[in-house]
Amino acid sequence: MSDSSLTTVGIDFGGTSVKLGVCRAGELLHTDAPITTGDFHGPAALITEMAARVAKLREIYPDIAAIGVGVPGLVDFEHGFVHVLTNVPGWKHVPLKAILSEKTGLPVVVENDANAMAYAEFRYGAGRGLNNIVALTMGTGIGGGLILNGQMYRGVGCAAGEIGQMSIDADGKSGHYGNLGALEKYVGNKEIAEHAMQRYAEAHVTKTLEECTPKRIADAAKAGDDIARQIWEEIADWLGTALASIAWLLNPDAFIIGGGVAQAGNLIFDPLQRKVQSMLSTVVWERLQILPAKYSNEAGIIGNASLAADAV
Amino acid sequence: MSDSSLTTVGIDFGGTSVKLGVCRAGELLHTDAPITTGDFHGPAALITEMAARVAKLREIYPDIAAIGVGVPGLVDFEHGFVHVLTNVPGWKHVPLKAILSEKTGLPVVVENDANAMAYAEFRYGAGRGLNNIVALTMGTGIGGGLILNGQMYRGVGCAAGEIGQMSIDADGKSGHYGNLGALEKYVGNKEIAEHAMQRYAEAHVTKTLEECTPKRIADAAKAGDDIARQIWEEIADWLGTALASIAWLLNPDAFIIGGGVAQAGNLIFDPLQRKVQSMLSTVVWERLQILPAKYSNEAGIIGNASLAADAV
Repeated sequence: MSDSSLTTVGIDFGGTSVKLGVCRAGELLHTDAPITTGDFHGPAALITEMAARVAKLREIYPDIAAIGVGVPGLVDFEHGFVHVLTNVPGWKHVPLKAILSEKTGLPVVVENDANAMAYAEFRYGAGRGLNNIVALTMGTGIGGGLILNGQMYRGVGCAAGEIGQMSIDADGKSGHYGNLGALEKYVGNKEIAEHAMQRYAEAHVTKTLEECTPKRIADAAKAGDDIARQIWEEIADWLGTALASIAWLLNPDAFIIGGGVAQAGNLIFDPLQRKVQSMLSTVVWERLQILPAKYSNEAGIIGNASLAADAV
Repeated sequence: MSDSSLTTVGIDFGGTSVKLGVCRAGELLHTDAPITTGDFHGPAALITEMAARVAKLREIYPDIAAIGVGVPGLVDFEHGFVHVLTNVPGWKHVPLKAILSEKTGLPVVVENDANAMAYAEFRYGAGRGLNNIVALTMGTGIGGGLILNGQMYRGVGCAAGEIGQMSIDADGKSGHYGNLGALEKYVGNKEIAEHAMQRYAEAHVTKTLEECTPKRIADAAKAGDDIARQIWEEIADWLGTALASIAWLLNPDAFIIGGGVAQAGNLIFDPLQRKVQSMLSTVVWERLQILPAKYSNEAGIIGNASLAADAV
C-alpha cells in the first residue's frame, strides 16, 4: 500500500450497469450516473464511454491519479486482462487495463468484483485493522474474496474465493460444475426460496417463489412465523458448516458477510454464530468475528478506487 | 527469505523422539541420534539436552547460525512460545525460543510441525518454485500447512491448516470438536482401517484392524483385491471432496500429500486426480497439481532448519 490519500476513480462494472465514483481515503466524494451496460455493444464502445466519463470527472477532480475497475468475472490482475465475463456479451480476452490506460493516460487496475468488495471492507469497512479476512457476498450465487497476511489473495489463476462452490456434503446436490454439495445450491437466493416453499408446503401453507425471497422470509420470521425462523436456522447450519471449514483451514480474524441474506440481521447472524462455534476449537473460535459488511451498493466503487490508490 | 545458504540446525520435536540435523541450502549434512522424549521430564530438562546437542554439533559445524524447532502443537510463531503440546506431558506455556536462544546464544525460530513440513516441500521439495501450496500429512490425524503468496500462512492464532477438521458432510460423523463431517473421521488411518474391515465383512471376509492399515490395503489392491481397490476409490472420494473445496477457496498451484496414505502411490493419486477434476472448473483445475511429498521422516528437520536459515 502506498499513498492511500490519492483521489481515484472506482468503476463497478456489472452485467446491468456500470457505476462510477470518485474516492479519497475510502470516502466517496462523488457518484456518477450509472452507464447502462446494454447500451454499449462490445468492449470498445463501453471502454470509450468509461474513458469519456473519467475525462468529465477530471474536470471536477483534476487530481484524479488512477482508476480501478472491478468486473464480474475472471481477470488476470497482473496484466489487467479480462478473460471472460459470462453475463456481458462480447467480453472475452479484453486487455482492459491497456486500453483504458491508453485512452485516459492514467494508471489502471482491473480486479474481480468480489475481490474489490473484500478490499473495501478490509481497508475502510467492517474488517479495518484486521489482517486475515474472508468476505462473502450472498445473492443468486455466493462470491468471496480473501485478504490473507494483510494482502489481497488471488491464487495462481486469480480464481480464489469461490466459496459458493465449496462442498458441504460429499453426496449432496450437484453444483454448476458437477461439484457435489456446492454451498450455493443450498444458500443461494433461488435455492433458499425453493427450500422455503417446500417447508411451507410441508406445513400445508402455499407460497410462491416471490413470497420466499430472503427478505420476505426475514419479514415473516420477525412477525413471529415459526417456519420462517426454522428456515433461517437451516440456512445457518449450511452456511455455518462451510464457514467452520474455512476457519479450520485459514484461522482468520473475521468473516464479513454482505448481500441479501446478511440483511436478515440477527435472524441469520445469531444462529450462524452458534453453529460456527459448535464446530470449532476454542483457539480458532476465540479470535474469530462474524460480521455484517459495512458497504452494500457502494462496495465496488470504494474497493476498486482503494485498490487503485494503493497500487500507484 | 534472506540467506538460505546458512548452516542451521533443524529440530523435529515429536511425542516419542526429538530428531536433530544440520542443514545447508536444504541439504541434510548430518543427522544426530534422536533424543527419546520420555527420558526428559518437563521442558527444562529437554531444552537443556537440546542445547547440549547443539553445542556438540557446533564443534563439527562451527558455522551453525541458527536453530529451527518444530513442535507437535500450537505455538505463537512471533514469540517462539509453545502454548500446549497435547501429547508431551508438562509442555504448556513454554517460552521455548527465549530459553533455547539464551542457552545457545543462537537465533531460534519455533514452528508448528505441519507448517515446517509444508515449508520443506515449498523450499526444497515437491513444491519448489510454486507460490501457493497446500501440504497435507496423513496419518492418525490429517495435518496441513499453507504457503500462500510465497509466504508461510499461519492465521491470526497460528492455528491455520487444520484440514482434518474440515467438514465433508454437514450431517456426517462427529469430529474431535463436535464438528460434523470432519475429514479425519473418514480418512484417518484408524477410520480407514475400520471402514475397510466393514467393507470386507460385507463381502464375508474377516480381517483384523491390523490387516487393514493403509499399507496392507495398498498391498491387497496391488495383488488384485477388488474390495481393496474399491476402498481406495472411496478414500479418494472423501479426500477429493475436501481438496476440491480447498481448491475453490484458494486456487492453489499444488496439493502436496505425505504420510501413510500417500505411500499407496497411484492407487490413491489416480482416483484422487479424477475426483478432484470432476469437482472443479477448468480454470481452477488446469493449473493445479496433486503431488506426493518429496520428504518423509526428514521433512521436519529440513523444514525447521530452512525456516531458521530464512529467518535470520
